Amino acid sequence: MSKIPYKIYLEEKEIPKVWYNVRADMKNKPAPLLNPATLEPMKPEELCGVFCEELVKQEMDDNTAYFEIPEEIRDFYKMYRPSPLMRAYRLEEKLQTPAKIYYKFEGNNTSGSHKLNSAIAQAYYAKKQGLTGVTTETGAGQWGTALSMACSYFDLDCKVYMVKVSYEQKPFRREVMRTYGASVTPSPSEETQVGRKILAEHPGTTGSLGCAISEAVEKATTTPGYRYVLGSVLNQVLLHQSVIGLETKAALDKYDIKADIIIGCAGGGSNLGGLISPFMGDKLRGEADYRIIAVEPASCPSFTRGKFAYDFCDTGMVCPLAKMYTLGSDFIPAPNHAGGLRYHGMSSILSQLYHDGLMEAVSYKQTEVFEAAEIFARVEGILPAPESSHAIRAAMDEALKCCETGEEKTIVFGLTGTGYFDMVAYEKFHNGQMSDYVPTDEEIQSYLDKLPKTE
Amino acid sequence: MSKIPYKIYLEEKEIPKVWYNVRADMKNKPAPLLNPATLEPMKPEELCGVFCEELVKQEMDDNTAYFEIPEEIRDFYKMYRPSPLMRAYRLEEKLQTPAKIYYKFEGNNTSGSHKLNSAIAQAYYAKKQGLTGVTTETGAGQWGTALSMACSYFDLDCKVYMVKVSYEQKPFRREVMRTYGASVTPSPSEETQVGRKILAEHPGTTGSLGCAISEAVEKATTTPGYRYVLGSVLNQVLLHQSVIGLETKAALDKYDIKADIIIGCAGGGSNLGGLISPFMGDKLRGEADYRIIAVEPASCPSFTRGKFAYDFCDTGMVCPLAKMYTLGSDFIPAPNHAGGLRYHGMSSILSQLYHDGLMEAVSYKQTEVFEAAEIFARVEGILPAPESSHAIRAAMDEALKCCETGEEKTIVFGLTGTGYFDMVAYEKFHNGQMSDYVPTDEEIQSYLDKLPKTE
Repeated sequence: MSKIPYKIYLEEKEIPKVWYNVRADMKNKPAPLLNPATLEPMKPEELCGVFCEELVKQEMDDNTAYFEIPEEIRDFYKMYRPSPLMRAYRLEEKLQTPAKIYYKFEGNNTSGSHKLNSAIAQAYYAKKQGLTGVTTETGAGQWGTALSMACSYFDLDCKVYMVKVSYEQKPFRREVMRTYGASVTPSPSEETQVGRKILAEHPGTTGSLGCAISEAVEKATTTPGYRYVLGSVLNQVLLHQSVIGLETKAALDKYDIKADIIIGCAGGGSNLGGLISPFMGDKLRGEADYRIIAVEPASCPSFTRGKFAYDFCDTGMVCPLAKMYTLGSDFIPAPNHAGGLRYHGMSSILSQLYHDGLMEAVSYKQTEVFEAAEIFARVEGILPAPESSHAIRAAMDEALKCCETGEEKTIVFGLTGTGYFDMVAYEKFHNGQMSDYVPTDEEIQSYLDKLPKTE
Repeated sequence: MSKIPYKIYLEEKEIPKVWYNVRADMKNKPAPLLNPATLEPMKPEELCGVFCEELVKQEMDDNTAYFEIPEEIRDFYKMYRPSPLMRAYRLEEKLQTPAKIYYKFEGNNTSGSHKLNSAIAQAYYAKKQGLTGVTTETGAGQWGTALSMACSYFDLDCKVYMVKVSYEQKPFRREVMRTYGASVTPSPSEETQVGRKILAEHPGTTGSLGCAISEAVEKATTTPGYRYVLGSVLNQVLLHQSVIGLETKAALDKYDIKADIIIGCAGGGSNLGGLISPFMGDKLRGEADYRIIAVEPASCPSFTRGKFAYDFCDTGMVCPLAKMYTLGSDFIPAPNHAGGLRYHGMSSILSQLYHDGLMEAVSYKQTEVFEAAEIFARVEGILPAPESSHAIRAAMDEALKCCETGEEKTIVFGLTGTGYFDMVAYEKFHNGQMSDYVPTDEEIQSYLDKLPKTE
């Protein structure tokens, strides 16, 4: 019997005291956000109309390697962090693999995912600036739930635009958010100009993250004392989420474990970026090497089939342009696509790293993902979120390769959350009603043809 | 800042190696189960038609203080145990109480509650006996989910009769059970004789635990290779659940904390009995004293308004008679009652202890319970199950008493599970649609008048 426990818990005093900013170690920095009108890099004062001041500083700082985590945020982290690093002994046995599989489990909190790590930071800075409320969008609902919890903790108003398809598939999420005092609106809505415009152009649309972002930004910039906050994509979010990777690394170090492969699911990049940041830092500084793999849905394949270009972050084109792997800001995955990872673009940081060949990307169809989810649930006892299950699938496939080669690779993946609010998707899977629709090349090209011209 | 962390985690090697049988230290033993036909104590060979042999031994053994936990079960426990003992610093601050509040959190596993502790034990013994499957009933769904997970782990068939009102209010629970390969039937059903009889007599009934038990027992005793398993009430269940109390005690001891008050919600008694067993043992042996408080819903008040008498464990009267605090085996709480704790009776062990003045009991109305749940969710960050919230309410009230007296009491309560599948109930609460119906004395008396005559 190995000495490594099933669950490696750090102590509360080992919660990181700083976030790590991977940009500081990147030779090729992520491209700056552009003002959509002038195509000039956004100035801090322009961004401050949308975001909190402190968060704008974090967003634009490509050089400071470490940011201190304020005491109030660390106190909140103590409610659910450090999160455990789990050794997947049973999954290894099930696969009969010589590989050693670990997963960092971020689902043991009421928001059900890692999103809380950044939500509490963003709520804290909003409160510190004396704001009265924040707006946001949510897709699968994890981010909205996380932000509701964070706002409730700091007594801030919280207005959530929820992608309509998720609002309908996950009515219970809404009640969790209400329990924490948030107001929740299905998007697109009639409440905003951009929402009304999208509804007029696409009646019956099931919504998209890009569209919900537009509504939330409009609401924030037209309501005094409000700002907008975002749960993924942005540099600041990856900074906050680095707490995942820092804890993972500390836990591995505690048992002298050297990771070979790091795997994370990728929607906008919040989890993947947070998990890999310190490992990528090692790699960028030449101190260690890892294979790093992003896993995305075949129905929304921004890394594997998108283009590295400047694009709008939102459907309504009210946000700045970001340089990223994108499918076009109009791209909306098929409505049959279950759960999150529906965003058309990808974090600029991760896009640059991928472009520079520092990480890989793979995509999976829904059914493959849910098959992995069910196996994992049965042997590891945790019912995974569909998003997280992308990483499970890829980790299982890497472990199965080790069966062939006999290599005892150490695989670490991010289990971002639980699937308790995704039972509609599981039900479709059980009933064989899950579609594996993948967009055609022509479809994708038609969206890419509409990318804004920036050069 | 106190040195006691927010979360006290034991190490995996500190998972108890034995279960503790509180009956061994009871001067007045719980009364034996009676054969409903002869009114004689049940013989082991009679019980073995319904239950696994090893479990029958555990059920009938009033004298062995400790039972070794088999290695296979301890291995499974490692997936989610030791569970954390949490210090409720934020709740204390919210209440401005000098009391110190701790809670043992059993919700951090996919079944969402403590039920898994006994489910895995019962599945293990069924497998060891060479059985092919087990049947059971589930109310709120936690037990069914737990048993599905346990059966999946040991590759056993699992047939669950789910109280119809829960089946309808919690459709997603069904999908979790299906993910683990269980078959789920709303009860009463047309599948069993007793189900058909109940449906004929009470068309439109929303079901009850007592009725679902009858169906599950009938199915088990008429299907070769099957036995019946139960998630509460029985002595064996309290034995397995003693792992909760043993860990709680070990965690308190680690920091030299002396509890004054132990509080648990009580439906059939599985959580309360498990939590208090080792503390009650101290008390019975005269080594320590504690106030021990059972908390039940005002709509199903077996301790506070029931009678200590022999009664059927099930509505269909196919099970043995147990001596317990009961509201009568026909008693069904009002359909507006949310969540679990719907059972008409109470564990014989706890009933005897309560009868002997060794513990107290209080009851709360639904709205009071959900008010406490929402406060708790907001300050402690965990969305509690309605069942668990009964204990929260009582703990808060004891802590508020300390505000008046200035006493720095140490209060420990059991947080049995999470409320992710209870959002219909939370929605009712948010919308002001929650009823606080409490049965009248006449109603209760009408059920008590029908208790079987055993003397």
